[in-house]
Amino acid sequence: MADYRAPRDDMDFVLHDVFNVAADWQQTEELAEMMDVETASAILDEAAKVAENLIAPLSREADEQGVSFADGVVTTPDGYKENFRQLAEGGWVGVTANPDFGGMGLPKSLSAQYEEMLCSADIAFSLYSGLTSGAIMALDLHGSDELKSHYLPKMASGEWTGSMCLTEPHAGTDLGIIKTKATPNHDDSYSITGTKIFITGGEHDLVDNIVHLVLAKLPDAPAGTKGISLFLVPKVLSDSNGNLTEPNSLSCGSIEHKMGIHASATCVMNFDGAKGWLVGEPHRGLPAMFTMMNYERLGVGIQGLGAAERSYQNALEYAKDRTQGRGAKATRNESAEADSILVHGDVRRMLLTMKAMNEGGRAFSTWVGQQLDRAKYASDAQQQQRADAMVALLTPVAKAFLTDTGLESTIHGQQVFGGHGYVREWGQEQLVRDTRIAQIYEGTNGIQALDLLGRKVCGSGGKLLQPFTAEIEDFIEQIAPHKEWTKQRAQLKQALESLNGVSAEVLDKAAADENIINSVAVEYLHLLGYVAYAYLWLRMAVVAEEKQAERPYLATKIKTAKFYYARILPRIHSLVASIKDGSESLYLHDQDDF
Amino acid sequence: MADYRAPRDDMDFVLHDVFNVAADWQQTEELAEMMDVETASAILDEAAKVAENLIAPLSREADEQGVSFADGVVTTPDGYKENFRQLAEGGWVGVTANPDFGGMGLPKSLSAQYEEMLCSADIAFSLYSGLTSGAIMALDLHGSDELKSHYLPKMASGEWTGSMCLTEPHAGTDLGIIKTKATPNHDDSYSITGTKIFITGGEHDLVDNIVHLVLAKLPDAPAGTKGISLFLVPKVLSDSNGNLTEPNSLSCGSIEHKMGIHASATCVMNFDGAKGWLVGEPHRGLPAMFTMMNYERLGVGIQGLGAAERSYQNALEYAKDRTQGRGAKATRNESAEADSILVHGDVRRMLLTMKAMNEGGRAFSTWVGQQLDRAKYASDAQQQQRADAMVALLTPVAKAFLTDTGLESTIHGQQVFGGHGYVREWGQEQLVRDTRIAQIYEGTNGIQALDLLGRKVCGSGGKLLQPFTAEIEDFIEQIAPHKEWTKQRAQLKQALESLNGVSAEVLDKAAADENIINSVAVEYLHLLGYVAYAYLWLRMAVVAEEKQAERPYLATKIKTAKFYYARILPRIHSLVASIKDGSESLYLHDQDDF
Repeated sequence: MADYRAPRDDMDFVLHDVFNVAADWQQTEELAEMMDVETASAILDEAAKVAENLIAPLSREADEQGVSFADGVVTTPDGYKENFRQLAEGGWVGVTANPDFGGMGLPKSLSAQYEEMLCSADIAFSLYSGLTSGAIMALDLHGSDELKSHYLPKMASGEWTGSMCLTEPHAGTDLGIIKTKATPNHDDSYSITGTKIFITGGEHDLVDNIVHLVLAKLPDAPAGTKGISLFLVPKVLSDSNGNLTEPNSLSCGSIEHKMGIHASATCVMNFDGAKGWLVGEPHRGLPAMFTMMNYERLGVGIQGLGAAERSYQNALEYAKDRTQGRGAKATRNESAEADSILVHGDVRRMLLTMKAMNEGGRAFSTWVGQQLDRAKYASDAQQQQRADAMVALLTPVAKAFLTDTGLESTIHGQQVFGGHGYVREWGQEQLVRDTRIAQIYEGTNGIQALDLLGRKVCGSGGKLLQPFTAEIEDFIEQIAPHKEWTKQRAQLKQALESLNGVSAEVLDKAAADENIINSVAVEYLHLLGYVAYAYLWLRMAVVAEEKQAERPYLATKIKTAKFYYARILPRIHSLVASIKDGSESLYLHDQDDF
Repeated sequence: MADYRAPRDDMDFVLHDVFNVAADWQQTEELAEMMDVETASAILDEAAKVAENLIAPLSREADEQGVSFADGVVTTPDGYKENFRQLAEGGWVGVTANPDFGGMGLPKSLSAQYEEMLCSADIAFSLYSGLTSGAIMALDLHGSDELKSHYLPKMASGEWTGSMCLTEPHAGTDLGIIKTKATPNHDDSYSITGTKIFITGGEHDLVDNIVHLVLAKLPDAPAGTKGISLFLVPKVLSDSNGNLTEPNSLSCGSIEHKMGIHASATCVMNFDGAKGWLVGEPHRGLPAMFTMMNYERLGVGIQGLGAAERSYQNALEYAKDRTQGRGAKATRNESAEADSILVHGDVRRMLLTMKAMNEGGRAFSTWVGQQLDRAKYASDAQQQQRADAMVALLTPVAKAFLTDTGLESTIHGQQVFGGHGYVREWGQEQLVRDTRIAQIYEGTNGIQALDLLGRKVCGSGGKLLQPFTAEIEDFIEQIAPHKEWTKQRAQLKQALESLNGVSAEVLDKAAADENIINSVAVEYLHLLGYVAYAYLWLRMAVVAEEKQAERPYLATKIKTAKFYYARILPRIHSLVASIKDGSESLYLHDQDDF
C-alpha cells in the first residue's frame, strides 16, 4: 500500500477558504481564546503525523492478525496497545472531550479532519478511541456531577475506554423491545442483567478499564422506546480515588468473525447482575443517546470518507506507475511499451469519481461539523436554531451518503488495480471490507433515510428542509455575476427544484399512504446528498477561482467541479424518477410472492 | 446460511415458455436426438441435486479453511477432493465437452442453468471445473487431432483438470507485452519459460494432472498481440497410453491471499523450460483464446447471477423470520411485539431489486446461451449470422452487467441482514467477497465495456447493434394489442430510442475524439444492459399473462415486471445524461492535477 498522506491543503482550503470557521470561533466565548487558524493548523499537522506515521503503517498487518479471543480475554493485534498509549498521551482520545475534564475540546469542524485522517489510517483502530469519545459525550451531557468527575478524566486521558451497549440478539433497529433489565440496589446503584451483541470495543487489552454505557429497562418501565434507561457499567469497579478494586459481574462471551475491521473487537457482552449507575433520567435513555448521536453519525460517515481518500491515494499512485495499453495518439509515450493507465478514459472516470466524491465529502462533513459547532456555541439564538435544524436534517445524510459513496469509491479504487486490487497485499480490498460496516452500524443507512424523510422532512411538514434550500437559493442568487458558471448554476437550480418538487409530492402523498416514506427514503437521501454536494462544489469552485492567482493548484478544484456537474450530478435524474413512482410497485407482491 | 434451493421452475419457464429452446434443438442435427424438454429437465434436476446437496453445504467451511500452500503443493479444503471426484463421475466436468471425447455436449442454454446452480452453491469450487471446461473448448477448437485424442478424454472425464495461463506481472489487460518465451525443441515440442500470475487452479490436489494452456512468444514472433502463440503444457508428462511418466519443468511458486474465493487456488506459475505443444497456428494464440472467450465470459457473468440468487434466498428467509418495527396499520401482527421486516418498503426495495435483477439476469444469460447455440448449431445461414452478431454484441454485456448487478444484489442481500450480514457465520458477506472478483478477471468490466462500445458497436459502424434493436422493435410491434402494458411498452420504446440516439452520437463523435469511447463505455454497457432486461421483462410478462391460468404462480412475474419498469429501468436517465456529456470532463485534468 502507498504511504498515506493526509490531505492537509484541502482540509485548510475547506475549513478556512470555503467555510471560514475561524470567524465562527471568534464569536464564541469557549473558542475565541483557544482556537485560531494557526493553532488549528498546528493541531491538524500533529494529527497528520500521528495518522501517517503511527497508525497507518500498522493497519495491513493488524487486519491479517485480527483480534483473538480466549477465556473471556480479547487480545488486540501487535502494536495496538503501544499505539493506543501514544494516542492517549498525545491527548487524541479526548480530542473532543470537555476541557473541564482534561479534554482538548476541539470544535467538530476541526475534529472532523482529525477523524478523517485516523479513519484513512485504520478504521478498526479508530473505533477504540471513537467509541470512547461517544461515551464521554453522552456522560458529559447527561451524567451526574459525581459520575462525571469520577469517570470523565480517566476517559478523556485515554486511561480508560468506553463502549455503547445497545443491540440485543432480537433487537437492533427496534430498541423498544430490548430485554436487558436494571433493578435498583439498596444504594444508588442498579443491578444490570442481560446480553448485548455487536459491542464494539466491549472487551480488549488496550487499557485496564472499560466504561460501558448500557441501555436497559427498569422494573416499572413503560413498554417500547419510552421505557429505556441508560446506565454506566464499568468493567472494573473503583474506589473514590479512581483506583481499580474488583471486577464487575460482566464478561465478554465471544467475539464476532467479520467481513472486515478484523482488528476491532466486536463483542457479545453478558451482564450478570453487574453494578451500574443511572445516567440521566429514568426511561429517558434513548433521548440521552440521541443527543450525542448527531456527532457519532457524522463520525461514522467520516469512516467512509477516510477509507475512500486512502483508496484514492493508493489507486492514483498505482495508475501513474502501471503501464498497460495505449492512450490517444497525441499523448503516447513512444519510448515505452505501453502508457500509464491514467491515459484511459475509464480509469480517469473511476479516479475522478473518487476525487469528486472525496473532496465533496470533505466539504460536506466540515459543513455539518460547522453546523454542529454553531448549534453548540453560537451566541445568536437565531443562528443557533438554524444550525440545529441543519444538523437534524443533514446528520442522517452525512452518515449514509458518506458511507454509501465511500463504498462506491473504495470499489472503484480496487477496480483501478485490476487483479491486484483483489489480492490482500495491496490493501485496496481491506478498505472495501472495512468501509462496508459503516453502512450498517450506528443505524443502517436505510434507517438513516427513514429518519431523514420520515422524522425530519415529513415530520416537520417540510419545514426542516427550508434552511437548507434557502441557503442554496441565496447562493444561486449571489453567483449570478459569475458568467462562467452559468450552466452549472442552472443545473443546481434545477436540481434544487427537483428536490423541492419531490419533497412536496411525498409530503402530499404521505397523508394517505403509510408506505410511501419508507418506499422512497433511500433514493431521497441520495438525491439530497447529490444536491448538497453540487452546492458545495460550486461554492468551492467560486472560491477557488477567486484565490487561484495566489495558489495555482486551486485551478484543479475548478476542473473537478466541472467533472462533478457533468458526470455525477446527473445521477439525480434516476433518483427523481424512482421517488415519483411512490410505493405502489413495492407493494404489489404478497409475502408469498417473493 | 439458508439451504440453497435451485430455482428450477424459473429456469424451465425461461428455457421453455419464454425462449422455447427445444424448438431450436429439434432443428439441429447434433441435438435433435439427444435433447428434448424431458431430458433437459431430468439433467437439470440432477444438477440441482448436486448443487444443493453436494456442493453448497461445504462452501462456508471451505471459505474459512481456504487453500494452503507449502513447498509447491497446494492443498484444497476438506471435502473438495471427494466432491470433485463425485462431480467428475457424474459427468459434470465435461458437461459442455464434445461427446466425441466423452463429454455430455450440453447446449449452452442448458449448461448456463447448471453453471448458475454450481455458482450459487460455491463459486470457488466451480472454478476448478469451469477452467477445465474452458481449456477443453480451446483445445477442441484449435488443437491437433493428436493433442485432442490424448488430452480431451481425460479432461472431459474430470480425471485431469485445465488452467488458462495468460497474465504476467507486467501484463494483464495488455497481453501484447507478455514475456514468456517458447523455443522449438528437436521434436514437435517447445520449451516454455516464463512466469504467469493469477492462474486459477494452476496447482491443486484434486487430481493428478493439470493441463495448462499457456500464452507465449515464439522466437520469430512479431511484436504485440499478433505475436502470441498458445501452448499446451501439462503438469505431468504422459506416455502414449496417457499414463503419467515424469513431472514437467514447471511449478507453483506461491498462491495469492485474496478478498474472496478463498477455496480457489490462485497461483503464480513458473515455467522453467517446460515441455509444451503448440495449439493452433503460430502467432494465432489470442484469436484461439477468443473463440472460446464468448462462452467463458458468459460463464463469469453467471457467477454474479449465481451468487446474487443465493444471497436473495438467504435474505428472503431472514426477512421473513426477523421481526423489527411496525408496518402499516392494516398489516400489523398485533399479537407479536414487532412485524416481519418484509413489511418495510426499504426491505422490499432491496429484495425486489435483487429478484428483478436475478430473474432478468437468468433470462438474459439463457438468451445469450441460446444465441451461442444458434451460432454453433443453426442450419439456416442467416439465423447463424444473426446469432453470431448477437453473441458478439451481448457477450461483454453478459460478463460485466451480470457481475456489476450481481455485486449490487449481494450487497443488498447483506444489508437486509443488518449487522448479521457483516458477520461471517451467515454467509452473506462471503457472497459479496466472492462476487467481487468476477468484475475483475476474464477481462475487467471496464475492458468489457470498451469491447462493446469500441470494437463491437463503433467498430462495426453501428451495424452489430441492428439485430438487437430490430428484435426489440419487432417485439414492441407485436405486443401493441396488449393494452395493459401500454405504459411499459412506451417506456421500452423510449429506452430503445435513447440507446439508438446515444449510439449514433458516440459513433459520430468518435471520428474526431479518440477518447470518447473509453470515456462513456461503462455507462453505455449498463444502458444496453437495462434496455435488454426491460425487453426480457416485458417478454416474460406477456408470456406469464398467457400462461397464468394454468400456473397461477406466474402472476408474480407480472408484478416483478412492473417493479422493474417502475424502479429499475429509470436508472437509464442518468446513464444517458452521462454518455451525452462525452469525454471532455474526463480530460480537463493533467496528470499532476489528480
